[in-house]
Amino acid sequence: MTKDKRVTSYDVAREAGVSQSAVSRVFRPGLSVSKKTREKVMTTANKMGYRPNAIARMLITKQSGMVAVIVSSRANVNYPEVLSQVSKQLAARNKRVLLFTLDNAEGGDELFEQIWTFQVDGVIALAAHFDHNSLDKFKEHKIPVVLYNRNVPDALANTVCCNHELGIKQLVNELKLNQPKNYLVISGPEDSDVATERREIALKQLEKHGEQQVSVLYGDYSYQSGRDCLAQWLKSNPAPDAIICSNDIMAVGVIDEAREHHNIDVPNDMSVVGFDGVSSSSWFNYQITTIKQPLEQLTKAAVDMLLEHIENPDSPPETRVITGTLIEGNSVKRP
Amino acid sequence: MTKDKRVTSYDVAREAGVSQSAVSRVFRPGLSVSKKTREKVMTTANKMGYRPNAIARMLITKQSGMVAVIVSSRANVNYPEVLSQVSKQLAARNKRVLLFTLDNAEGGDELFEQIWTFQVDGVIALAAHFDHNSLDKFKEHKIPVVLYNRNVPDALANTVCCNHELGIKQLVNELKLNQPKNYLVISGPEDSDVATERREIALKQLEKHGEQQVSVLYGDYSYQSGRDCLAQWLKSNPAPDAIICSNDIMAVGVIDEAREHHNIDVPNDMSVVGFDGVSSSSWFNYQITTIKQPLEQLTKAAVDMLLEHIENPDSPPETRVITGTLIEGNSVKRP
Repeated sequence: MTKDKRVTSYDVAREAGVSQSAVSRVFRPGLSVSKKTREKVMTTANKMGYRPNAIARMLITKQSGMVAVIVSSRANVNYPEVLSQVSKQLAARNKRVLLFTLDNAEGGDELFEQIWTFQVDGVIALAAHFDHNSLDKFKEHKIPVVLYNRNVPDALANTVCCNHELGIKQLVNELKLNQPKNYLVISGPEDSDVATERREIALKQLEKHGEQQVSVLYGDYSYQSGRDCLAQWLKSNPAPDAIICSNDIMAVGVIDEAREHHNIDVPNDMSVVGFDGVSSSSWFNYQITTIKQPLEQLTKAAVDMLLEHIENPDSPPETRVITGTLIEGNSVKRP
Repeated sequence: MTKDKRVTSYDVAREAGVSQSAVSRVFRPGLSVSKKTREKVMTTANKMGYRPNAIARMLITKQSGMVAVIVSSRANVNYPEVLSQVSKQLAARNKRVLLFTLDNAEGGDELFEQIWTFQVDGVIALAAHFDHNSLDKFKEHKIPVVLYNRNVPDALANTVCCNHELGIKQLVNELKLNQPKNYLVISGPEDSDVATERREIALKQLEKHGEQQVSVLYGDYSYQSGRDCLAQWLKSNPAPDAIICSNDIMAVGVIDEAREHHNIDVPNDMSVVGFDGVSSSSWFNYQITTIKQPLEQLTKAAVDMLLEHIENPDSPPETRVITGTLIEGNSVKRP
């Protein structure tokens, strides 16, 4: 396999009859250059197959222009929407998303090596679990990290988070209006930080209302796991009056299972709440009472915070908590 | 803002008491090195904050290890699933996804400049519209491109595509079983290549069955647009016997609108088919008759084809068409 000698900015400058610095300016974002020069350089560069040497630029500026976005394969179903928003926000700030998938909560070493190799300017961890040890590694490599939707309070990490505490409080208050006699919590996976946080807040809130020892079942955030949890529960228990699900998609599964196989009417026989506010939660058959995450604000905050820490590596860690919106659907029984 | 002098592989080698080439081997994927040396180098490298100079490596191998994945903001709703699969397939081949969003079908020049700048090894266009002119630009820059799920027959481009022709034929045959008297087509946006292909195949198939001048309405692939199309149609027309939607999510919208506001029973009063086989299409309330795209095979084929063309830039363009699976749901009336 042979490849031609790479065309340099000097070759383009010679051919176009301009200085090399003019060529260089054309290909550096944010630098001014006359329209005429720009056109001349672009035409010549295209003709010659010139690729501006971003790589040399990286070596000088020490910025690659890339941000690693790490997604867990165990992510909640709404992560693609988040990824799409993050990508837009970063593009607007002239940064690009380099995508990494973390396949399990344990072995991330290979992933880390990859991240160092690509010399990304920073990292946004979308749905990945990082322990203190992992966070320390980024610190050693001087790569700023923002954790999206998770709280690692004593890890001194940058975090952007939906207000889970307030949101779940509001959902429990909605359920309380009709004074349910018994509750069930259907949680996301045990190794998911977000699921853990939502579950623990729910149990704490219920305890405050005098509900001790509420049962917990574990799904994997998927529709089918919502169905399976309810089916399993009903094998040896009556239908609960109220179910708190860690996300909307499991709530959809619960509602379908109740209606299709158990002749349970939602909301009249059983109330169900979700979390996230994904689009299907508002579909006619579900209209789930949920907390809509402020995706745009959350992703903008994450990107702002990351860029701040790329520019000022010594900035102290920061936590931003943004309040979601209670959506009063039709999945909770009214008094 | 000051940054430390970058630590080089020579610094690491000196500190670890090994040769520079040993350090270099540790950080090049696919090269063998003893476990002991590897450990010594890794420990020293981590301690010193060494980042292997991928950039110098790129200049030598002329491969950046990155593949640009271009997504249109007008994409069908199932693209995130595709993106996730593509990312996994590429990671398995030691390539990373650099994500680009094409905001409209027209002005992609800025996007192209970005792509040249990052010196990606290749491009997978997921849901973006490329004309011949755009494809020529990639050719000029010697960057191989694979178009996902779209056909540009005379453009001599690499394409991987679900068998839309066969799939829609199967869907029309399903509908025909009950001999509907009139049809409606609800298409995706006019500037979407996939939508155009699906719509034209549907109209051609219907014509073959003697159905001339079937009306077409245009949505944007979203749930709400499915609802809106049906609502608008019913303002001045009776309910059609059969509706062919360009994707599942619009079919879901059509079904909800029919049931909630028009007292139309699906499938008894009106049959509805979709396309894609997204997970919500199989939910209890919908059970849409649709074509499930073979996502894993499609994405694997796209990645294989791209890598083949990265390794052998002079390989001729190729088209691969993969057959989807007919899902017989419960949204079509049986005779």
